[in-house]
Amino acid sequence: MLAAVQHLQCGDFIVKEPMVIGHECAGTIEEVGKAVKNVAVGDRVALEPGIACNKCKLCKQGFYNLCPDMEFFATPPVHGSLANHVIHPADMCFKLPENVSLEEGAMCEPLSVGVHACQRATVGPTTKVLILGAGPIGLVTLLAAHAFGSPTVVIADISPERLKVAKELGANATVVLSTSDNEVESEVLALQKAMGADIDVTIDCVGFTKSMKTALKATRAGGRVCLVGMGHNEMTLPLTPAAAREVDILGVFRYRNTYPLCLDLISSGRVNVKPLITHRFGFNQKDVVDAFETSAKGGSSIKVMFNL
Amino acid sequence: MLAAVQHLQCGDFIVKEPMVIGHECAGTIEEVGKAVKNVAVGDRVALEPGIACNKCKLCKQGFYNLCPDMEFFATPPVHGSLANHVIHPADMCFKLPENVSLEEGAMCEPLSVGVHACQRATVGPTTKVLILGAGPIGLVTLLAAHAFGSPTVVIADISPERLKVAKELGANATVVLSTSDNEVESEVLALQKAMGADIDVTIDCVGFTKSMKTALKATRAGGRVCLVGMGHNEMTLPLTPAAAREVDILGVFRYRNTYPLCLDLISSGRVNVKPLITHRFGFNQKDVVDAFETSAKGGSSIKVMFNL
Amino acid sequence: MLAAVQHLQCGDFIVKEPMVIGHECAGTIEEVGKAVKNVAVGDRVALEPGIACNKCKLCKQGFYNLCPDMEFFATPPVHGSLANHVIHPADMCFKLPENVSLEEGAMCEPLSVGVHACQRATVGPTTKVLILGAGPIGLVTLLAAHAFGSPTVVIADISPERLKVAKELGANATVVLSTSDNEVESEVLALQKAMGADIDVTIDCVGFTKSMKTALKATRAGGRVCLVGMGHNEMTLPLTPAAAREVDILGVFRYRNTYPLCLDLISSGRVNVKPLITHRFGFNQKDVVDAFETSAKGGSSIKVMFNL
Amino acid sequence: MLAAVQHLQCGDFIVKEPMVIGHECAGTIEEVGKAVKNVAVGDRVALEPGIACNKCKLCKQGFYNLCPDMEFFATPPVHGSLANHVIHPADMCFKLPENVSLEEGAMCEPLSVGVHACQRATVGPTTKVLILGAGPIGLVTLLAAHAFGSPTVVIADISPERLKVAKELGANATVVLSTSDNEVESEVLALQKAMGADIDVTIDCVGFTKSMKTALKATRAGGRVCLVGMGHNEMTLPLTPAAAREVDILGVFRYRNTYPLCLDLISSGRVNVKPLITHRFGFNQKDVVDAFETSAKGGSSIKVMFNL
Repeated sequence: MLAAVQHLQCGDFIVKEPMVIGHECAGTIEEVGKAVKNVAVGDRVALEPGIACNKCKLCKQGFYNLCPDMEFFATPPVHGSLANHVIHPADMCFKLPENVSLEEGAMCEPLSVGVHACQRATVGPTTKVLILGAGPIGLVTLLAAHAFGSPTVVIADISPERLKVAKELGANATVVLSTSDNEVESEVLALQKAMGADIDVTIDCVGFTKSMKTALKATRAGGRVCLVGMGHNEMTLPLTPAAAREVDILGVFRYRNTYPLCLDLISSGRVNVKPLITHRFGFNQKDVVDAFETSAKGGSSIKVMFNL
Repeated sequence: MLAAVQHLQCGDFIVKEPMVIGHECAGTIEEVGKAVKNVAVGDRVALEPGIACNKCKLCKQGFYNLCPDMEFFATPPVHGSLANHVIHPADMCFKLPENVSLEEGAMCEPLSVGVHACQRATVGPTTKVLILGAGPIGLVTLLAAHAFGSPTVVIADISPERLKVAKELGANATVVLSTSDNEVESEVLALQKAMGADIDVTIDCVGFTKSMKTALKATRAGGRVCLVGMGHNEMTLPLTPAAAREVDILGVFRYRNTYPLCLDLISSGRVNVKPLITHRFGFNQKDVVDAFETSAKGGSSIKVMFNL
Repeated sequence: MLAAVQHLQCGDFIVKEPMVIGHECAGTIEEVGKAVKNVAVGDRVALEPGIACNKCKLCKQGFYNLCPDMEFFATPPVHGSLANHVIHPADMCFKLPENVSLEEGAMCEPLSVGVHACQRATVGPTTKVLILGAGPIGLVTLLAAHAFGSPTVVIADISPERLKVAKELGANATVVLSTSDNEVESEVLALQKAMGADIDVTIDCVGFTKSMKTALKATRAGGRVCLVGMGHNEMTLPLTPAAAREVDILGVFRYRNTYPLCLDLISSGRVNVKPLITHRFGFNQKDVVDAFETSAKGGSSIKVMFNL
Repeated sequence: MLAAVQHLQCGDFIVKEPMVIGHECAGTIEEVGKAVKNVAVGDRVALEPGIACNKCKLCKQGFYNLCPDMEFFATPPVHGSLANHVIHPADMCFKLPENVSLEEGAMCEPLSVGVHACQRATVGPTTKVLILGAGPIGLVTLLAAHAFGSPTVVIADISPERLKVAKELGANATVVLSTSDNEVESEVLALQKAMGADIDVTIDCVGFTKSMKTALKATRAGGRVCLVGMGHNEMTLPLTPAAAREVDILGVFRYRNTYPLCLDLISSGRVNVKPLITHRFGFNQKDVVDAFETSAKGGSSIKVMFNL
């Protein structure tokens, strides 16, 4: 989001006209169409932010996140959800269980990214997972990996502060990395040592050349690297030696079919997203400005919430 | 093989002492151990060139090609098969059906690479396949893709001569590529046009930066790129945009469980490898020298065979 | 269809009111809505007969054939397609390639059943397939299995006449079965002998107790039995010995995502459905009566077509 | 085991000569061959009881549990492990982590059956699991299902005592079933109500006609039924309606590649098998007789252990 806010661009998407931002949200149903059955007025719901066509080949095969006609909150030119009211298709509204708050409902969005990464990398009870990057997406991926049964999740970052949070959230081990490109070989050894076993899956939530180089070298033969972060567009990588060890590289674009699982994970207590919500603001002009400044500053902020 | 012959190195494998080369072979059984049941003296057999430990975790899960203790013909320091006699485990000897020649038996080795690429990329009757590179491996991959049911295989190369052979072997369309890096965008369009449909899978049998760049851009969202060729070790690639379309990159290391299928494909006529055998030599000193010179020259030679 | 016509019941579906029948059809577009892009007036199209909700969990995961709100031609109380005009969603209309006739377009429906059986049983180039039943569905499954790359398809039936047709359509071997339950053991041996190899997949297009018993016993350890025919509702079977050999039983309900593949198979010549169309009738009262009588008589009729 | 002890027969395996029984065991290494690297004298190890050929097609594909030449402890005519010393291949000996006892090591065997059932039925964080039968295998399957991430496991049995144990082991809900065949419909409703959601997977650890009938009817369209128990050999079942909802039936034969996972699950505390060990005996004549009598009586005994 901040990329779009500061640079008016995120990947191939360019902001050309004034646009409402925001895509992580939950709210209360005020009105429903006559045919709607799954939710009713007064229900609290989490909103999955993308509206796919439901009719193309990819949609019909279940890959609706890849639908070429997708309309997604705050992806130009589609307006986002940072608003008092939004109109949204009923099948993209997921009723919150009683013990799940609106804030937790909104957290389904970032959590979905971690869940989808684990789905794509087929994380399960035999999968030892290395996560590169302990920012918000790295942290939700950590929570998701444990929920998928992973016995050991090692997480690495350049910030010891972030790793402290990761440790509190259940990381089995943490490793501080440098920013130097010369350290890749020694850091790979340190990561493998921290795991104490083969690294089956590496999930790169940073997406820089250095992190992917580390991922390709650290992962065991026959393992998987999942690229989630989008730090660099172009990367110079030793791809051939990785391919020759059948280390596959799996991409992630948003998520599909994750909201019911996320609500189930939060409601059952298997995932606790509350510690990720570090700041709260009201939804008036002053608070909104403060909120974005807090978020831009970084520091201890992970997720910043607006409450009506 | 020529890499090892000319540079005494292939990937991480370095030739340090005199070594017999050769790993594509078939022959007649002269002697068997008492416990051997699957083959008998006089049987003509194809030899799968790698001997795995059969006991490690990867072997037991069926990924024996990734066995860390693999001993493989002509992979230093293991001697190869270009010899009058070799001793080989019975379970790596596959009896040739009556209508399969020794030469065709030897062709199971390169064909296995194409078959494994199709296995890894899950090629089937809905998969439209682009192959980059029309050398021997590109050609066997073309044959394999059709055998796996692919309806349309487009193959591209810088050499119109090679593409002519590809066309004769059944390629549905061919595209001549340049060596210039500036042409990637326009060549991607040309390849997509030649396919006349989404490219589901691209198999890169070249393995250069330019070919992988082309592969990542040409393949449809949700498709697969299989990296087979090993031209460049390190590549500078727009990896993030590909990941954001969930174009996965799948590596290939040799093959596993392919010999029975290869023999079945050849024996049933679903694959015809004979046109790939362009030159034949005897197995004496003069012929061996001539054979390597022929092969090194390139030109019209695809596969060069020695016959005892 | 005949079950519904004669008994006014097919499985759990009961005909309670007068209803138009028919679900295998193709036609020419006469009118389209404003938003329709994939087809235009004058286009010849095949109609996939089921309209799913596109919004439920199963639809979004790609299993739309299992949608609980499915409306399917001629499945009570939904009218069928044996009519001069039908209104149908554009995304369920598939444009026919120029070289595919309307009759072949209508054949996509039964062919889809065979294709889906092969999808569910993961038929590929290493899969040796036994088909039980050489009626229309057995025959399209035979065509589909070859298109999916199966090297050997053995087909069995109690009717030598039907097996003659199967042979002409490319069956690698045929076996005449008895109707006696006492013959299962010896017939299993005969089927395995006809295959000359392990039977990896058995597709039961009959669905009687005896055919399933045969399927469970004939299929190799670790193989798959796909149940397509619906002869008996309840069956007495040696299920435990089959489970203890990890012979899995996979069900089939109609099909999903098969029409583009079927059109591609027909258009490219990989599948030839023409020999299955044995009788043609006009679409007037006398012809319709004759057509149903022809079909009910059985004999040499496989598929009976109406042409406007 | 008791089947073999009492009836001298288990499935197709018949005891014809005096035979040592036992296949769940762990012990201390007394001697190793020169080439052995993975274990050393003094190591405490769990023994995976089957010795596969490692050379046949199924072994090489990773399905070694289906190897036709398997030699398995106490499967006639192979002697079992209830002995002071056994000779066993090193690759079938798995070193116990320090915090895993010999008794827990022996529990890897039954736990493996539950783990393999979850592997075959692809249990994960979205899978709601019904287990029929709360005997030892039902209970280990319950433990395994949670370890695989299942959010909700409902378990049913005719014995409220057994269900009490299941509840203590973490079952999310339990249902008491009758022995009457007439209750299937109402019991299916009760099971679905207890789940409070679609039943994605049913694992039948009983294997009687009634339990399989219940499994087929209770499981959602597109779900999986895994048959583990071997109560009845032949069953009369409504197979066609289940197939028409694409409810697949997956068999289980022992397990493959489960021991490392089982040790990891026990060592990390994700699975606690200790409550399943209800009785302990010494390994002398009197104790052995007492042990088998205890086990045969049933009652509160789940697993009975011998300690040297």
